[in-house]
Amino acid sequence: MNKPLRIGIAGLGTVGSALINLIDRKQELLRQRCGRPLEVTGISARDKNKARDFEMGAMQWIDNPVELAKSDNIDCFIELIGGDEGVAKDCVVAALNAGKHVVTANKALLAKHGVELAALAEKAGVLLNYEAAVAGGIPIIKVMRESLSANSVERVYGILNGTCNYILTRMEDEGLSFEECLADAQRLGYAEADPTFDVEGYDTAHKLAILCSLAFGTQIAADEIYVEGISSITYDDIKAAGEMGYRIKLLGVAQMTDSGVEQRVHPTMVPINSSIAQISGVTNAVAIDADIVGQLIMSGPGAGGDATASAVAGDIADIAKSRPGHQHGPALGTPSEILQSYKKARMRAHEGGYFIRLTVVDKAGVFASVATRMAEQNISLESIVQHRGGKNDNNSPDTSTAQPIIMITHETTEQAIRLALENIETDGHLIGKPQMIRIEK
Amino acid sequence: MNKPLRIGIAGLGTVGSALINLIDRKQELLRQRCGRPLEVTGISARDKNKARDFEMGAMQWIDNPVELAKSDNIDCFIELIGGDEGVAKDCVVAALNAGKHVVTANKALLAKHGVELAALAEKAGVLLNYEAAVAGGIPIIKVMRESLSANSVERVYGILNGTCNYILTRMEDEGLSFEECLADAQRLGYAEADPTFDVEGYDTAHKLAILCSLAFGTQIAADEIYVEGISSITYDDIKAAGEMGYRIKLLGVAQMTDSGVEQRVHPTMVPINSSIAQISGVTNAVAIDADIVGQLIMSGPGAGGDATASAVAGDIADIAKSRPGHQHGPALGTPSEILQSYKKARMRAHEGGYFIRLTVVDKAGVFASVATRMAEQNISLESIVQHRGGKNDNNSPDTSTAQPIIMITHETTEQAIRLALENIETDGHLIGKPQMIRIEK
Repeated sequence: MNKPLRIGIAGLGTVGSALINLIDRKQELLRQRCGRPLEVTGISARDKNKARDFEMGAMQWIDNPVELAKSDNIDCFIELIGGDEGVAKDCVVAALNAGKHVVTANKALLAKHGVELAALAEKAGVLLNYEAAVAGGIPIIKVMRESLSANSVERVYGILNGTCNYILTRMEDEGLSFEECLADAQRLGYAEADPTFDVEGYDTAHKLAILCSLAFGTQIAADEIYVEGISSITYDDIKAAGEMGYRIKLLGVAQMTDSGVEQRVHPTMVPINSSIAQISGVTNAVAIDADIVGQLIMSGPGAGGDATASAVAGDIADIAKSRPGHQHGPALGTPSEILQSYKKARMRAHEGGYFIRLTVVDKAGVFASVATRMAEQNISLESIVQHRGGKNDNNSPDTSTAQPIIMITHETTEQAIRLALENIETDGHLIGKPQMIRIEK
Repeated sequence: MNKPLRIGIAGLGTVGSALINLIDRKQELLRQRCGRPLEVTGISARDKNKARDFEMGAMQWIDNPVELAKSDNIDCFIELIGGDEGVAKDCVVAALNAGKHVVTANKALLAKHGVELAALAEKAGVLLNYEAAVAGGIPIIKVMRESLSANSVERVYGILNGTCNYILTRMEDEGLSFEECLADAQRLGYAEADPTFDVEGYDTAHKLAILCSLAFGTQIAADEIYVEGISSITYDDIKAAGEMGYRIKLLGVAQMTDSGVEQRVHPTMVPINSSIAQISGVTNAVAIDADIVGQLIMSGPGAGGDATASAVAGDIADIAKSRPGHQHGPALGTPSEILQSYKKARMRAHEGGYFIRLTVVDKAGVFASVATRMAEQNISLESIVQHRGGKNDNNSPDTSTAQPIIMITHETTEQAIRLALENIETDGHLIGKPQMIRIEK
């Protein structure tokens, strides 16, 4: 009963090193909680000779992570290599086929091959755990897979990318531009040199694809997500949002609708008094609306070596407690062979409220023309603000005659909004492009 | 492998009935997620003939819940009777001794006998699950027992009583008195006819005692909790708090300090922009500060038949997946035989900021006298507000000369604050009693 759980770790970057140090530092606590010791018996990374901040001790170095994954010397394989193909996938497949439990923090891999990997885990009767892949230290996977077993989820949404939330928070707090805040985020190590993956919403989309499958028992469909990033958000949007009682967050939203599943990532107006609106800086948050329990919201650190290692260690602890013959819950919450095919709701059918910010030339009849275009699509307005003498932030030459118009609509459809805005643009009174931000209640 | 999990339920009130209906309604979903069917095979309650909103079907009625707990006809016993002694305890003990897994929603029982019951469960090699006992639908127990396996908790605190939070929310939103809101809560079924247990903080204390043991690996010590309820909170306090950037919540706080464990339940000032401050109405929330992950916050419904049944069903699903020989994590996170004895920190040693509201007679020198008394205890003030012509809410006859003084202190000790307030009272300038509310950052 008290045989150690033998762990193999592939990938020894920030998270891998933090994990090895954590298992060492907390060995007694983990032994008490798991009923047996945890022991890192094998490691692998690209460069054996790189300086690392842990003692290798008795750990076996194996150059090829696929060999480590299959090694008789481990019970449990931890994939911290990253990437949605290649060696990361090869070694996870090898480990599952060899009957090893697997823990991975690799959202890209799961977003692309999660269903295939879940099927392998179920066939082998082993655990495939990936708490760290979504929202870092927030135990959202465990809660959805286990705590909500009797619930049908109706919507799951959240702030899943700390970089974007950091940028939006700084913009609001200090009145800065997107570009200024991005540069700071890069300086502080919160954003990559090429920030596209984060700021254009793709990272959020990977995480959302996993949550969506867990929520609705559908195949993972990362390519079917409507994705819009935060690079078009200006301080004027944020300020106008605040005046209307909203704050702008980059949300990933997965929602069951009558016409299929909506998966969307976009800047979103959330009521300024909501819990989600209070999530500032690099913190993440996830909200789940479920039929039995109602709404649960969880917030915490979405990234970082320690927070990620904490999540991986929790996954390992579950494996340490499991014994052969234990009936593991399916990796994606629903057995992989009965995951439903993904039926995509058309984005144009999306229903909700909208925030519209237009800059128009200041002449008689323009406002009436805009209002008429909205009315033609049966869009009713909850509020309208037109600041006389407002300043246009597009630096166009004719700012002296530019007037901002800000509108909040009642619930309408994406189709109606897009048509109205196309017509308004065609009418030719606009300076620059209209800004449209969806509202989530 | 696919034998049904046979469930016995004792106690068929709101939660018991909701649970039976839930298991019936979600049987297919639960079967998929657990790998086998769940079947309620036995039930027990005080009155067999009472009208209930579920079909008994093939369930066996057993008059004596202790007999049900030991019955060969069940694998898993659900205790929904309530009470910290008597039949609830007898049947949980009987079930554990008979090698049955147990799920209970009974916080009072666990607060009093949790360590003894955890030891019985460990001896029998069965699960003792109690997610519903703390914060209703919020999966705080699972997160603390499992997700945070590698973490040492430093502080856990939260809004653990929906009745109190409902009352405080209504008072703030509508400018009502405690008594008016309590009467409404009673009318709406959020508060009992005798509300003492909720509004004086004892319900919060029971839940806190359980969280504290989970957090610090200490014996449960419900009798060692400093408890102060919300009945002394006035709308003037709430309004003054708002002006200072705070909101008043009834928190349960457990914190490791150098001199021992602090466990306290009291009205607390929380920064108005914090996530905890946004928790309104009957919603609960729990925050955990842990050494590796940092801070996690979870919010959700703290009570209600469905939310509670959801938590109980999650506990049952974990049991359905377990197999003989599985190494269950210890019921209290730490094996019961090595739970540390509880070392209580003296409340007078508590360190923090304080909100003080005094009503003083309006004459020269009073303010200086108050300030001197604070200074004598080395208490430094972060802010002071004295509204000329303020109104005294104690309905004392001399309101014309009454002046409110509101102070926020920097960090100091409970000892210092109490001495200062005693001296201020002795000086004889006060109208009514001073109000003192602790600040939590």
